[in-house]
Amino acid sequence: MTSMLLYDTTLRDGAQGEHINFSAEDKMKIALRLDDMGFHYIEGGWPGANPKDTAFFEAARSITFKNAKLAAFGSTCRPGMKPGDDPLLKALAASEAPVITLFGKTWDLHIERIMENTLEENLRMIRESVAWFVSLGREVIYDAEHFFDGYKDNGEYALETLTAAWEGGAEVLVLCDTNGGSLPHEIETVMEDVKVWLGDRFSGDARPIKLGIHAHNDASLAVANTITAVRCGAVMVQGTINGYGERCGNADLTSIIPVMQLKMDVDCMSPERLARMKSLSRFVSETANVPPLNSRPFVGKSAFAHKGGAHVSAVLKEPRGYEHMVPELVGNERRVIMSDYSGKSNVTYKAREMGIDMEGVDSREVVSEIKRLEQEGYQFEAAEGSFRLLVERMAGRFKPRFQLKNFRVTVEKDKDRHCRSHAVVHIDTPFGEEMSAASGDGPVSALDNALRKALECFYPRDMAHMQLVDYKVRVLDGSGGTASKVRVLIDSRDPDTIWSTIGVSEDIIEASWQALADSFHYKLGSSEI
Amino acid sequence: MTSMLLYDTTLRDGAQGEHINFSAEDKMKIALRLDDMGFHYIEGGWPGANPKDTAFFEAARSITFKNAKLAAFGSTCRPGMKPGDDPLLKALAASEAPVITLFGKTWDLHIERIMENTLEENLRMIRESVAWFVSLGREVIYDAEHFFDGYKDNGEYALETLTAAWEGGAEVLVLCDTNGGSLPHEIETVMEDVKVWLGDRFSGDARPIKLGIHAHNDASLAVANTITAVRCGAVMVQGTINGYGERCGNADLTSIIPVMQLKMDVDCMSPERLARMKSLSRFVSETANVPPLNSRPFVGKSAFAHKGGAHVSAVLKEPRGYEHMVPELVGNERRVIMSDYSGKSNVTYKAREMGIDMEGVDSREVVSEIKRLEQEGYQFEAAEGSFRLLVERMAGRFKPRFQLKNFRVTVEKDKDRHCRSHAVVHIDTPFGEEMSAASGDGPVSALDNALRKALECFYPRDMAHMQLVDYKVRVLDGSGGTASKVRVLIDSRDPDTIWSTIGVSEDIIEASWQALADSFHYKLGSSEI
Repeated sequence: MTSMLLYDTTLRDGAQGEHINFSAEDKMKIALRLDDMGFHYIEGGWPGANPKDTAFFEAARSITFKNAKLAAFGSTCRPGMKPGDDPLLKALAASEAPVITLFGKTWDLHIERIMENTLEENLRMIRESVAWFVSLGREVIYDAEHFFDGYKDNGEYALETLTAAWEGGAEVLVLCDTNGGSLPHEIETVMEDVKVWLGDRFSGDARPIKLGIHAHNDASLAVANTITAVRCGAVMVQGTINGYGERCGNADLTSIIPVMQLKMDVDCMSPERLARMKSLSRFVSETANVPPLNSRPFVGKSAFAHKGGAHVSAVLKEPRGYEHMVPELVGNERRVIMSDYSGKSNVTYKAREMGIDMEGVDSREVVSEIKRLEQEGYQFEAAEGSFRLLVERMAGRFKPRFQLKNFRVTVEKDKDRHCRSHAVVHIDTPFGEEMSAASGDGPVSALDNALRKALECFYPRDMAHMQLVDYKVRVLDGSGGTASKVRVLIDSRDPDTIWSTIGVSEDIIEASWQALADSFHYKLGSSEI
Repeated sequence: MTSMLLYDTTLRDGAQGEHINFSAEDKMKIALRLDDMGFHYIEGGWPGANPKDTAFFEAARSITFKNAKLAAFGSTCRPGMKPGDDPLLKALAASEAPVITLFGKTWDLHIERIMENTLEENLRMIRESVAWFVSLGREVIYDAEHFFDGYKDNGEYALETLTAAWEGGAEVLVLCDTNGGSLPHEIETVMEDVKVWLGDRFSGDARPIKLGIHAHNDASLAVANTITAVRCGAVMVQGTINGYGERCGNADLTSIIPVMQLKMDVDCMSPERLARMKSLSRFVSETANVPPLNSRPFVGKSAFAHKGGAHVSAVLKEPRGYEHMVPELVGNERRVIMSDYSGKSNVTYKAREMGIDMEGVDSREVVSEIKRLEQEGYQFEAAEGSFRLLVERMAGRFKPRFQLKNFRVTVEKDKDRHCRSHAVVHIDTPFGEEMSAASGDGPVSALDNALRKALECFYPRDMAHMQLVDYKVRVLDGSGGTASKVRVLIDSRDPDTIWSTIGVSEDIIEASWQALADSFHYKLGSSEI
């Protein structure tokens, strides 16, 4: 079993992603978590390039990492300048990071057309910059920017840049597919060439030559390109958590690590840590404040979710039937989704999972009722609370704690003033009738407040511990203009649980009422009187 | 240049994705768009398995597709049954789809442990089911479910199942990585074995053996596995738009098509159609009503967005510096993130595009006003009508044809009856006041009807030729429960144009009113009195 160095750049390259914005504190929280997960290198940023990164490295000085080496990222020195005279390199050194990751130019197009520099001078900048940090006792990792594009245009020169970095004393030579447009077989060819060439050139060298890979996802191939490089002998993979990064993102370590560990016999993370991969993914998306991607391989909410009826019954008999691995190995779990593709087995599985008593219910009837309702626009995969009520109604077990007699919602607007909404709700309960009125931010909020007020007279304890936490509206078919059908989803919670309910109608108030009433029915129905 | 058959299964396998839910009408809209884009096969669903798919194929009978063949998906016949006696196969035939895509079992584990069937009987089911549809004059595509997993466990038997399908008369043998866990080099090895084996077995056969690939993304490798199979000689790729599909999704055709056409010299789509790939991606995500993924390769909003300052200036000098291809080839465009300069140029660009006179407007002011409003949740990319009104208001050129004095909307519901909504609107115009009342399907519809009625008194010609065609609601921040902020987008049209307007508020009626009023202002503002 070969072993692999994990190099995380979520805090630097990942932060280049659109909508990704880490504070220095966020960065520290993530760095500590990555260290805890056993990553070998954590790239914290570019000290000197922006105040946030400088602050992060200052704070990092007082931290002792258990496993990881902290890396500071930066460029080779400027043309015509000695490394020791370049303020940017001095700022890098001042960060006191034990590892310096220097990126240099490979591509003649980039050097001559964009940098307006000479190929010779570029080689000097690489060699001397690496050597300077080595002379300061730092471990230097060399990122060869645009290596694969550069190699295609001028292979010999691309190899010379690696030579310069190696002679300068770099520990690892990382080949970067900066633009993310390379294909796996191209990565393979280039890697093989590089190995042969460096092998010949430095056959006498005592230091073993170490190659790394840094891939981007612009052609949906970052993971494939990374594992291809690993198969060709790369000993370091650079990537980010959740594949965050500029444009289409970097190679996603939450996929690469399980692929290497579980499918390629490459040792990079212990089983105990691997089993925390999903929570790491969630932790980073929460800290970055971006919604987690449900379909993300291995760690996404839907990664092991089954919708088709045949799939569900198969998985229950034999998980390998539709699961390429055991979800728990990465801390994920199997889920069964209700939908019009559902069969009997989804319903029974779901019911068991939710502890719903199917006594006296024909699950075939439930399935066909669900299919009928989903034709109308209901979607029970996101509304398990309404699903439970549906089953209980069909079983004749549903005992409503309240019934609507009527309600009236009024919205008024005067010139240059905001709308004002109020609602009057009249309900009937086993303990008597009640009529209440309330206002709110909009008609649904007013309706919610008035109903809650009425129910508080009879079920004060339940109401005290229940609140609405999310309200979603979706127009199912826009072609009807303002008369289109809408679907309303409401999430509610009490100290112990969260439940979702649904309503569908051409009338948003009607749809909201259905979801609202179901939410309160669910709460009260599941509590003793 | 080799050519490739594009097989889209967005409407069947794609619909298995969590939160993906197409109505029969949605399916038809997408099918027509795919046909227009030149896809060779469109899989519409599984007729007989659920009412929605049956309805779709009924509707499809009256449609003549320009380019695509419509495929109905289904299983081989049941154990111990003749194909002609199997109700599921009869339903497939009844769909009248010219192409039947049959999936059969490859994996002994699946056949024996899950289906509790014998290997021999499974071969009979495959051979006879394929042959039956061929005898009915249908083109049959055979999907070998779990082919790669099956081949690993029992290679010889896996190959026998392909033989059965081939002997039955299948046109294409599609190897499916159903669980999505295979690695590219495994795909390559298996494909090579299959080619050799079938080549030997059917060397005398007049029909050329055609292989296809159907990949899933559970290991982030669906695109890589697909193009690997293409390099190994597959002549058909199956996938979905935006990679929608169960669990982690199917192979994403919005990546695979550009990779093949632009990077692999594989001919599958004309440049004119390829340049509409981004809008196809958007159309499907809008129809599925799932937010588009910004980081999606090739077609995502961020796919060519540059954040780092150095990258931006480099790209302006030499696009190849940080762009692996020309964005316009797939209908995408370069974006520069968080730059006031770009903001300013965007505004002037958009204004010019819309023929808005920027005379007497400081575009910097407009930019900062837009930024303020977008902070609040407005989004002018999707509401150019409101954008025009914004500019005209700031230029002091806006002459309202009406002003609101006040409105009142009432929604009433009695036990067991649907809601009833009516609205009273009182407006002031250069020609006098008017108060009108109207009912509608829901409060916004009532408001729309009442305002329209009032405006008809003064602008009958304009009102006669204007209608609302779409109404979208999105909750911007769920955390406030029913008091969350909502964004309303309204599309309106007259015989010549379509325009979009926007409103944002905690109150859905307030937000709807803003968008509604803007829509009428836009219509009347741009017409002579």
